[in-house]
Amino acid sequence: MEENESMALPQALENYRKQYRKIKLFQDISSVLHWDSEVMMPEEGREYRSTQIAAVAELTHEWMTDPSFLELIQSAKLTTKELPESERSLWNRELEILMEEKEKADKLPSEFVAEFAKLTNLAHAEWAEAKKERNFKLFSDRLEELVNLSKKQADYFGYTTEPYDALLDTYEKGAQANQIQILFSDLKNSLIPIVAKAPKFENPFKKPIPITKQTKFCNRLPSILGLTKKESRLDISNHPFSTSLGKGDKRITTRYSETDPLTSIFGVLHETGHSLYESGLSTMPNWPNPLTEYLSLGIHESQSRLWENQVGRSLPFWEFMYPILLNDFELSESELPFQDLYKYINSTEKSKIRVEADQVTYNLHIILRFEIERDLINGKTKVKDLPEIWNSKMKESFGMTIENDAEGVLQDIHWSMGAFGYFPTYTLGNIFSAQFFKKFTQEYPDSHNKFASKGDFSDLLSWLRKNIHSKGKILTIENLVSEATGEPANAKYLISYLEEKIKEVSISN
Amino acid sequence: MEENESMALPQALENYRKQYRKIKLFQDISSVLHWDSEVMMPEEGREYRSTQIAAVAELTHEWMTDPSFLELIQSAKLTTKELPESERSLWNRELEILMEEKEKADKLPSEFVAEFAKLTNLAHAEWAEAKKERNFKLFSDRLEELVNLSKKQADYFGYTTEPYDALLDTYEKGAQANQIQILFSDLKNSLIPIVAKAPKFENPFKKPIPITKQTKFCNRLPSILGLTKKESRLDISNHPFSTSLGKGDKRITTRYSETDPLTSIFGVLHETGHSLYESGLSTMPNWPNPLTEYLSLGIHESQSRLWENQVGRSLPFWEFMYPILLNDFELSESELPFQDLYKYINSTEKSKIRVEADQVTYNLHIILRFEIERDLINGKTKVKDLPEIWNSKMKESFGMTIENDAEGVLQDIHWSMGAFGYFPTYTLGNIFSAQFFKKFTQEYPDSHNKFASKGDFSDLLSWLRKNIHSKGKILTIENLVSEATGEPANAKYLISYLEEKIKEVSISN
Repeated sequence: MEENESMALPQALENYRKQYRKIKLFQDISSVLHWDSEVMMPEEGREYRSTQIAAVAELTHEWMTDPSFLELIQSAKLTTKELPESERSLWNRELEILMEEKEKADKLPSEFVAEFAKLTNLAHAEWAEAKKERNFKLFSDRLEELVNLSKKQADYFGYTTEPYDALLDTYEKGAQANQIQILFSDLKNSLIPIVAKAPKFENPFKKPIPITKQTKFCNRLPSILGLTKKESRLDISNHPFSTSLGKGDKRITTRYSETDPLTSIFGVLHETGHSLYESGLSTMPNWPNPLTEYLSLGIHESQSRLWENQVGRSLPFWEFMYPILLNDFELSESELPFQDLYKYINSTEKSKIRVEADQVTYNLHIILRFEIERDLINGKTKVKDLPEIWNSKMKESFGMTIENDAEGVLQDIHWSMGAFGYFPTYTLGNIFSAQFFKKFTQEYPDSHNKFASKGDFSDLLSWLRKNIHSKGKILTIENLVSEATGEPANAKYLISYLEEKIKEVSISN
Repeated sequence: MEENESMALPQALENYRKQYRKIKLFQDISSVLHWDSEVMMPEEGREYRSTQIAAVAELTHEWMTDPSFLELIQSAKLTTKELPESERSLWNRELEILMEEKEKADKLPSEFVAEFAKLTNLAHAEWAEAKKERNFKLFSDRLEELVNLSKKQADYFGYTTEPYDALLDTYEKGAQANQIQILFSDLKNSLIPIVAKAPKFENPFKKPIPITKQTKFCNRLPSILGLTKKESRLDISNHPFSTSLGKGDKRITTRYSETDPLTSIFGVLHETGHSLYESGLSTMPNWPNPLTEYLSLGIHESQSRLWENQVGRSLPFWEFMYPILLNDFELSESELPFQDLYKYINSTEKSKIRVEADQVTYNLHIILRFEIERDLINGKTKVKDLPEIWNSKMKESFGMTIENDAEGVLQDIHWSMGAFGYFPTYTLGNIFSAQFFKKFTQEYPDSHNKFASKGDFSDLLSWLRKNIHSKGKILTIENLVSEATGEPANAKYLISYLEEKIKEVSISN
């Protein structure tokens, strides 16, 4: 199907890729099953669906760990020696990336993978129920099972310093908790004075905006950013997410609040950022192969945050979108003055809920979660004590009193998915996004004008395609950031972005 | 998971069922992929999705035809001899049914199955495009490939009298084209005088009914018939269909016409009937096993037709639904008089389009398709001549002139799915449905009152559950019909139902 392939690859390379693609094909089938279960499935379908998802996970894990697949990879590896030097290094990188992934998979018994998949699928419904009932106890037994399975998983993977590192590494290759601890402490220290002076602005929507009107506006956003309707769709789910179901098929979801339309809008902008990355990966040559996968969750998150914050909370973006919003929401300028809207978009207000947090306080939520889950996986904390720990940390960092578990420890989906080690990647993404965007604006100083006057984001998308999306897993995270921006990853661009933003909205106050 | 299984089955029976269920699990995954591709998927996802569907088909076919599965079945078969006589016959039937299915699968090479699945998935889009363009030539090459593959399939299966029988048998076990020809000729002769005197009534909807209002009404229908929202959902697709995605997950679709709301309503009633059957099958003991599958397409269709026609076009049904319809459509009685609505529901008018046909002329459409596809598969007709043959038969049977292929030979999805031999099952379903419903009304003479006064269809659903749904594949088609109704299948109840209906609406004219 790919052009390059018509130039007859050596048989051993063909053979290995064929098997890799079969595995990938079924992993993507699992994504369809999962998307459907979150967005479409009637509730009584859950048990059978969880059995299906577990069966696919077991099957792909079997294929991945089958000795015959290792033989195919080894033959491919030998064959690369015969290739011209220009092609050899990319093939070696491809096989190396795959072997790293495969070695991780090899460490997990098939039954463990199936058990984990089935448990997390069941846990999801129980977490949702417990959250609805605002009662952690309804979920704590299952969470304890998940923590225990995750500790077991860390043991299977192995680690040098602490069990948590083994899980972190699956989301952010090479990341280590003690280094993240240092980075996050510095960030926290810089954030505290920013939070102290960051102004809060009132919700300018004086009356509820019906969901049909919000949907009309939201449906425009992906196309404006560069994600076409032919390759994507937007739906509603309890917790916004995005997923790639294969080439030409990206799914994003959001949720709607009649009283605060920013909920749905920023959900869409965020998830569109993720899907633009996946869409870019799908257009890499010889897709799919191990190099056309996303590099890390931190890099993935940088793409969503960049569109959500650096673009979506910017003045030029709203200069373009404001008249469209007024039209779709059937509001007059006097009903929704531009300055009131723009300030509200950049308002800072301590919140109990992470997904409702502004861009300034957001990272404090992450740091809290990182500290808690790190202790949980390292065995320093017990599941039953989680609500108390959560609530006291919220008091300490935010000065807020948690009234019930739904607004506390039960608010996030992640642990119900057995995704420990995932949270820190959000803040890494924020750090990367500010650094990428700064570099882009230096290279394209006129970009703001094009955003504001024409809603033209093609320069930005091209820059991202060239520097991030088209790189897949070819580079390490470290090298990707350095090559794209000319320096190693660091938080100073995030800090200066936030400081400037606060200044901007405070002056115009 | 099933109660009966806790009573520890002999190991060989456990083992065989485990493998059977794995195959079934992946077949149901394929149904998810297919539903999504028809109802949700963005268009650029089609190629990759067709590869996925083909891969699952290939995989399940490999498992089904793997010698190790045969060994499991043979061991299970031996083990049944040790069972008490009370259990033995059901087990033997289960294994016999499976072996029949397996022997069919064994006759098809895996590559053939994958090719067929991939081709039909691609053909679907091309058929839709050709239909949109009203141009058969855009589809004829692909259709020729499908016909050739289907002939090859008939050869693989083998047949006694004619190739078409081999395909027919996959939808309606044991059915034979020459017998159907006789049945259909008799039916045609009986139908002609009915069609001649059947009155046509005008569309009583004087203004378009917005889709939102129709959706509100349509969403009520499955629950009223007995299909809960917890186990089902209703969506929109180009061609209405229903599919079971597993226990507790039935999907139905319909399509909307603003000028004729009966299109969506009868789509929903029809597909709900199919899903009620699947829902009943899912509640059979030890689901899933080979006996909990639907018996035949004719029986499946009898369930949809029964709810669509015998119930959905009946006076008591509309006595109950009329005020609800007026409310949802925001119409007054004078804007939509009951008699006008009821007559229109039972209006007869020759149509070029099968799915728009009334219950009287519908079977003439089927007979036409049966004759054409029989000749096509038996090699008496060439694909390129199809439009001409179609159009001349429409002239002959209906006296109508086909203006373009979209209203002619391209109107139906079936051939693009490679489903030759499927059409006759629609008319068999009509025959069965009238016979079943007659028997039900004899056993429950009060049922009409309960429909009309309370919208209570539980007696009917219980009767169907008991006599049809809970039987799965335990009985042959012949025995199912005889046991349920006390006599062999015959068309006289369909004829008398139609005659009475015509009399009823003609008198009140």
